[in-house]
Parts: sequence; structure tokens; C-alpha cells
Amino acid sequence: MQDKYAQVRLISKPENMLKTVYTACRTCYSADSPLNIYDCESAQDDEKMLKLINRVISSGHYSTIEHIQVSFAISNISRACSHQLVRHRHMSFSQKSQRYVKEKGQFDYLVPDTIDSNPELKQKFDEFMGKISEFYTELTENGIPAEDARAVLPNACSTSMVASLNLRELIHLANLRLCTRAQKEIRMLVKKMCDVLVQEEPWLKDYLVPKCERLGYCDEDKSCGRKPVKEK
Amino acid sequence: MQDKYAQVRLISKPENMLKTVYTACRTCYSADSPLNIYDCESAQDDEKMLKLINRVISSGHYSTIEHIQVSFAISNISRACSHQLVRHRHMSFSQKSQRYVKEKGQFDYLVPDTIDSNPELKQKFDEFMGKISEFYTELTENGIPAEDARAVLPNACSTSMVASLNLRELIHLANLRLCTRAQKEIRMLVKKMCDVLVQEEPWLKDYLVPKCERLGYCDEDKSCGRKPVKEK
Amino acid sequence: MQDKYAQVRLISKPENMLKTVYTACRTCYSADSPLNIYDCESAQDDEKMLKLINRVISSGHYSTIEHIQVSFAISNISRACSHQLVRHRHMSFSQKSQRYVKEKGQFDYLVPDTIDSNPELKQKFDEFMGKISEFYTELTENGIPAEDARAVLPNACSTSMVASLNLRELIHLANLRLCTRAQKEIRMLVKKMCDVLVQEEPWLKDYLVPKCERLGYCDEDKSCGRKPVKEK
Amino acid sequence: MQDKYAQVRLISKPENMLKTVYTACRTCYSADSPLNIYDCESAQDDEKMLKLINRVISSGHYSTIEHIQVSFAISNISRACSHQLVRHRHMSFSQKSQRYVKEKGQFDYLVPDTIDSNPELKQKFDEFMGKISEFYTELTENGIPAEDARAVLPNACSTSMVASLNLRELIHLANLRLCTRAQKEIRMLVKKMCDVLVQEEPWLKDYLVPKCERLGYCDEDKSCGRKPVKEK
Repeated sequence: MQDKYAQVRLISKPENMLKTVYTACRTCYSADSPLNIYDCESAQDDEKMLKLINRVISSGHYSTIEHIQVSFAISNISRACSHQLVRHRHMSFSQKSQRYVKEKGQFDYLVPDTIDSNPELKQKFDEFMGKISEFYTELTENGIPAEDARAVLPNACSTSMVASLNLRELIHLANLRLCTRAQKEIRMLVKKMCDVLVQEEPWLKDYLVPKCERLGYCDEDKSCGRKPVKEK
Repeated sequence: MQDKYAQVRLISKPENMLKTVYTACRTCYSADSPLNIYDCESAQDDEKMLKLINRVISSGHYSTIEHIQVSFAISNISRACSHQLVRHRHMSFSQKSQRYVKEKGQFDYLVPDTIDSNPELKQKFDEFMGKISEFYTELTENGIPAEDARAVLPNACSTSMVASLNLRELIHLANLRLCTRAQKEIRMLVKKMCDVLVQEEPWLKDYLVPKCERLGYCDEDKSCGRKPVKEK
Repeated sequence: MQDKYAQVRLISKPENMLKTVYTACRTCYSADSPLNIYDCESAQDDEKMLKLINRVISSGHYSTIEHIQVSFAISNISRACSHQLVRHRHMSFSQKSQRYVKEKGQFDYLVPDTIDSNPELKQKFDEFMGKISEFYTELTENGIPAEDARAVLPNACSTSMVASLNLRELIHLANLRLCTRAQKEIRMLVKKMCDVLVQEEPWLKDYLVPKCERLGYCDEDKSCGRKPVKEK
Repeated sequence: MQDKYAQVRLISKPENMLKTVYTACRTCYSADSPLNIYDCESAQDDEKMLKLINRVISSGHYSTIEHIQVSFAISNISRACSHQLVRHRHMSFSQKSQRYVKEKGQFDYLVPDTIDSNPELKQKFDEFMGKISEFYTELTENGIPAEDARAVLPNACSTSMVASLNLRELIHLANLRLCTRAQKEIRMLVKKMCDVLVQEEPWLKDYLVPKCERLGYCDEDKSCGRKPVKEK
């Protein structure tokens, strides 16, 4: 077993990120060519560029921020969590394969908080993971290929991946998965993804928020208290 | 435990399927309006329509068959299989939630063929599924919510879903997943999806094939023998 | 020249539309298989099904309505309008080709309202369309292929298409394009698409609205007056 | 009027492009975490990384190259060409708006080669563009808004955009649009996009080819001679 939550590192973002989005935003409304916009004086001035970009995003013209794609290396998330994440169909994933990678010895796994905080259940949980590991090994030692032996591996089993998405999709991901209603593990994962990006690009902070912050109200049946539900 | 492989039923296809695709195909190349094409005499003649549609698909103009979307009710597939299926990002899925649906008593599960054909391992496998079920129940009875207790549920655990996709994506799905290289469970699932559709729409038979049949050669590193690998 | 705005006909929707969505919605939250849900008694009761479907859509779980795809035959829209429409990347289009279909005699075209309502400019506009038509014909008669002669054809030139989209995307399309800020021609087009669908499926009426009706406020810089802008 | 074909500049690609794809490729088949793979010694060795990446792409596992997104500034293409380009639904576009940007004086335009090479028609074409420009100006001076006056602007009219796409889509774009069957203007555009990228990333050269080079045969009705048509 490892850390309690996902390990996340930002491994790639576009060269010239601000200039690219700034050029995209101005191209829509300018008689000037994007090549000239890219070379112009304003495109040397981060503050000027950010002012325009912020205005465009605030007015909901999200297509301009599709030009920014970022890539994360993610490890130590459960297969339950990865099954939720890969449902985001605008993302690109390269995930560790349970068909091609055989587990050797005790597999890594994630313990849900509600179990982790109960010492007795936690001990039983760890023992049970050990038993699963033993049975998995027995299967593979009896000639069962990894792709079939994995039938016994649990949702708790750890996986890792490289995941890429553009800024529009990242905002959408944050809106949905930072919501208190999302399951804790994916909430913590998406929070880390946002945090490591905001560390390098602080101007993104205000956009990577739960949907209630964007809407101004909670659109779920019951609010967690952060924002009131929408009045009818 | 239930049947060995997926249960699949075609629950929806478009009204006027042939006329819709026929109208789409002819709209691209005709001075006539799609409303007139739809009402014209040829659009009463299945054979005439199929001749055109087949010609268009054969020449690779797949955008015209995106107008056909079909929906399948699928049950008795493993979570391992569903994790592969939901990676097809042009499909739409509504899957049974392990967060919101608590397993009661022994959960359903799928036994991989390599294990099923080994009586000794099969018996151990069944016993092990029983132990997992017991531990799952112990967790939920101790107040662990279903969304966390499911951490112990195995990849073998059965799931079900409604899945929709257009004909272009179905052809792509068949090309990839009917290939001998695909894992057996998803191969059987996709075969059933194709079979139940072809039963109602026999003209689709020739398109719902492994990729080697479409390409004329195998593009994998090693061929299963169905087609020779591409000559360099 | 023809009618002032688009002609639109709904040419396809799914068989068993309500039952399919109902089955999808319940599959997520039920221990029952989608095949049983589809066959159950409630799935004979339109009112019961609509109650559930409405609740699911209202709480923003739009993935379940991706299972409904509808197809429209559209004619008499300008190329300016079609250029806007095809930017909706979740839609499927089969559009009349200006490469392969040669205009014969005066091409059809659309007159923008602001020009149509000014008799003097309207007359000049019609005459100008005539001149373009003559030059186009001169080019093709001199051996210029249609794909190049079309270089002189104007944005006003009429086009037609078959367009398909799922209900999630249609709601998004309505949200954006029924907004007063959208250009009049595409607003009228999308209104007709919604109208012909609502005529057959009245329960959809409340969802096919401009975004301000969904949000509860206007998120543009200035409101048209329908809803107040979001308070800061 | 300007140059005969598109102006294209590569304005953004990912930092650490090779390391990112290399990490993605190895993550699928390795027990090691993507964070460790990214930091390992091999990831310092371009040659080693390229060897693996080339092998993965050659065997058709295109999902791994979705992690690379590139952005181009494009100007001097016709609206006819942009209407073809924006049909690629996996791309992101920010295009100069004819609604919001009013043409001042003679608009830029592209002359198709077949007209350009005929001096008499070329002269008439230029004169006609002049007349359209005059009528456009008359309309706007009479209070017609740009979004309606553009109804008279021709397909030849020049536009510009910022376009982004991932490497998988770029290979698909090249496969389709470098084919002799594609219209010359978009063929020249896509060729330039490929050329400017290959200049910086020479290893991509072999993938950015017409589809017949990838398939080994021509899948059109008639071959241009580059490759023979597929034998039945």
C-alpha cells in the first residue's frame, strides 16, 4: 500500500500557451492575420494577454481555450476511480493494462477513507487484499493468463495512466468532480490535477472550481451548503 | 452465476432507417432537396436504396451512416469487459452504478473460459467469489456505504448497461473487437451485438467484420491466420 | 428565390424512444437488468416513464438522453448559416456538395431580413445575384470545373442537408442558437427544428429553450431583456 | 490579393513532446509508474524513445499519440476551403468572423488555379471581385450590418484561423486531404501544415502521407496512379 490518494504530475503543456490562446481570441474579431497577431507587441505583454483571455473565458466562449492541452502522469488511483475518469470522452488516456502487465507479489491498492478510519475493518481489508493476491498468484502459476487471472482483482487495485485534456474539458471536469457529490477519491484526484496546473498557471485558479461556483447556485437535488439550490 | 457470455438485445433503431441514409447519401450529390428525395419513388424501393447505400459505404464515405444510431440492452458482462467497452468514446452509455446499487446476497459474476475449463480452479474461483461476497456484506452491515464497500468487488463482477452508437462507430467497434487479438469476452459481446442487428438488417453483415477483412491483410505484429500480415 | 427561411422536416427518430431512455435511466440505479426493465409493466405507461425521464433531465444527467438521436431534412438555408451549423461538432451532416453539384440557371439564395425590408437594396441584391449566376455559368461553360467556379458563389447561396444529433446536443444547440444574440437565420432554423420535434414529442418543449431559461439568468455581456444578467 | 496558397505557421506544440508520448506508450505495458518512467534514463535518449514510439504507431495504437496537440496559425485560405476544414470534428478552430469583422476596401480572395492560368478569365474574375467589394461597401454604408452584408461575399473570400489538433487527427487529416482526390487548395494547406511540423519533428514524416501510402492500395473508385486500387 502507498499514499492515501493519487500522485499527480503535470508532464506537458503547450509551448507559448498564453500567446497561442491570445492569438486565437483576437483572430475571431480582428482584420489582422493570426501570424501578425502572434508577432505583435501586445503578445509580449502577459498582463495584456491575460486581461483579454479572462474576458473571453468569462463570457463563455470556451472554444478558444481548446487550443491548450495539458498532460498529467497519474498513479496510485483505484480501478474504481479510473473507471469513472475514463467516462470523460473528450480526454485521452494511456492506462496500465491488466491484460499485459502481470501483478507480482502483493498488488498495490487504495483503502477508502471510511474503511481506513475503522482500525478493525482496515485490518480485515488488508488481510483480504493479501488473500486475493495469493489466489491471483495461484491462478497465474497454474497457467491462467494475466488477462483472465485479473478477474479476481478488486476495484481497490491501484492503476496508473497518462491523461491529456484541453482546458475546456478540464474546466468541465473540475465543475463536475470537485462537487461534493462526486466520490471522494476522484475529487481528490481532480483537485490535485488542478493544483499542480494552477501552481504553474495561477491565472487558471478561478475557473477550476465546482459547478456551483460557476452557476451561482447548486443544481443538485440537495445542496452541500456551499451554494443555495436554484430557486424555482 | 448465469450464462457464460453477455445477453444482448437490440432495443432501438431509427424509424425509416434505409430512407434516412438513402436521403443523406443522395443529398450530397443531387440538385434536389432532401425533402423531395425522401418523398421520391426510389425511396419506396428497398433494393434500389440498398444498392446506393452499399456503394457509398464501400467507397469509405462513412459520414453518411452516422445518421443511423442503434441502442442495445446489455447484461451479464464483467466489469473488466465494461471497462474496455467504455473506452470507445463515440458511444453513449448508461451503466449500472456500483455507487448507488448495493449488491444483495451473492453478486453475479463471469468466469473466464480458461478458468471455467479447469474444474479444480473453477471450484476455487466460485468459493472465492463467495468469500468476497461475504466480506462485502460485512462491510455494508458495518455502515460502509456501497460506493466504498465495492472496493473489494472483483473485475469478474457482472454489470449491465444500455449502450448506443452510430453505424460508423459500430463498424469501427466490430473491426477492432472481432479481431482474434481482442479479449474473448468483449469479442463475444460485440459478436452478439452485430448478430442481433444483422438479424433485423441483413445488409449490414458484410461490414460488421474484423479489420483484416476490411483491409485485406492483418496489421497486427502476428496474424491469427485469417489473413496474411501486410507485406512490407 | 424561395421562402424566407429554412424548410425543415423530421425524417427519423428512434423506435421506442421513451422506453429506450426510460430503460437507460433506470439501469443506472437498479439491480434489475435492462432487458427486464424494458419488458416491465411501467415501461408500458408513458406517463410513469415521462415522470422519471423529466426528473433525470432536470437534475442535469444528460448522458441518458444521448440514446435518442433524431434526423432532420433541411433545405433553403444559406451557406453562411450552414457554416455556423457545421461548427457543432457533435452533429452528423450530409450536405449538398458545391464540388459535385453544378448550379444550373439561377441558383437559389437567401435574402437577409435587413436587406429584404429595403425595397431598393432588395432589387439591387436580386440583380447582383443574377450577375453572379451569369459569371458562374460563363466560367463553367469555359471548362472551369464546378469545384472552382463556385469560388464566385456568395454566402447567400442556398444549400441543403440531412443533419442528425442526439437530444443532449439538440438541447445544447437550442440553448445557444435560440439566444437573441445568435444570427437571425440560424435562430429561425433551430426554432423550426425544435418545433417539428416538439409537435411529435411535446414533453421536450421545456428543454428546447435559450440558455438563459435554463440558467435562470443571462450570461452575455448585455441582456436582450428576457432575463437579467447574472449578478456579480 | 496575396500569395496563391495558405500561409501556415506552427505556433505551439507540447513541451517535452517525445518524453510525454514515450511515457504514455510505456505506461500501458509496464509495472512502473508513469512518474518513474518519465524520470528514467531512457527518457533522456531521443533515439531510444523514437524507436519505441515508431513501433507503437506502426502497429496502429494511435491513442498514445493523442497526447500531442499542435496549433497552427493559418491565413490566406478561401471560405470554401475553411468550410471543408471545419468538417474535421476532432479539431479546434478560432476563425475570423464575418459577423464581427467588417471588410474595408477590397477584400482579400483566392483565385483557383484553373482560373488563374487563364489570363482572360483571371482578369474577369478580378474585376468581378471588385464589383462584389463595391456592392458590399454600398450595403454597409446603407446601414446593413456586416453579418448581413456578407451575404454577397464569395467563397473565394480569404479567411484566417488558429487551428489545433492532436497527432492522431493530423495523421487522419493527412491521409484524407493529401489524397489526389481532395481539392487542390486544401491539399496545399494540409501539405504546408505537415511540412512546417516535419521541419521541427522530422520523425513524423513517414506518417503524414495520403491514405494509399498507409493502406498499401487506393480505396477510391479510380486510382490517380500512385498506388493500384485494391484487388477484389
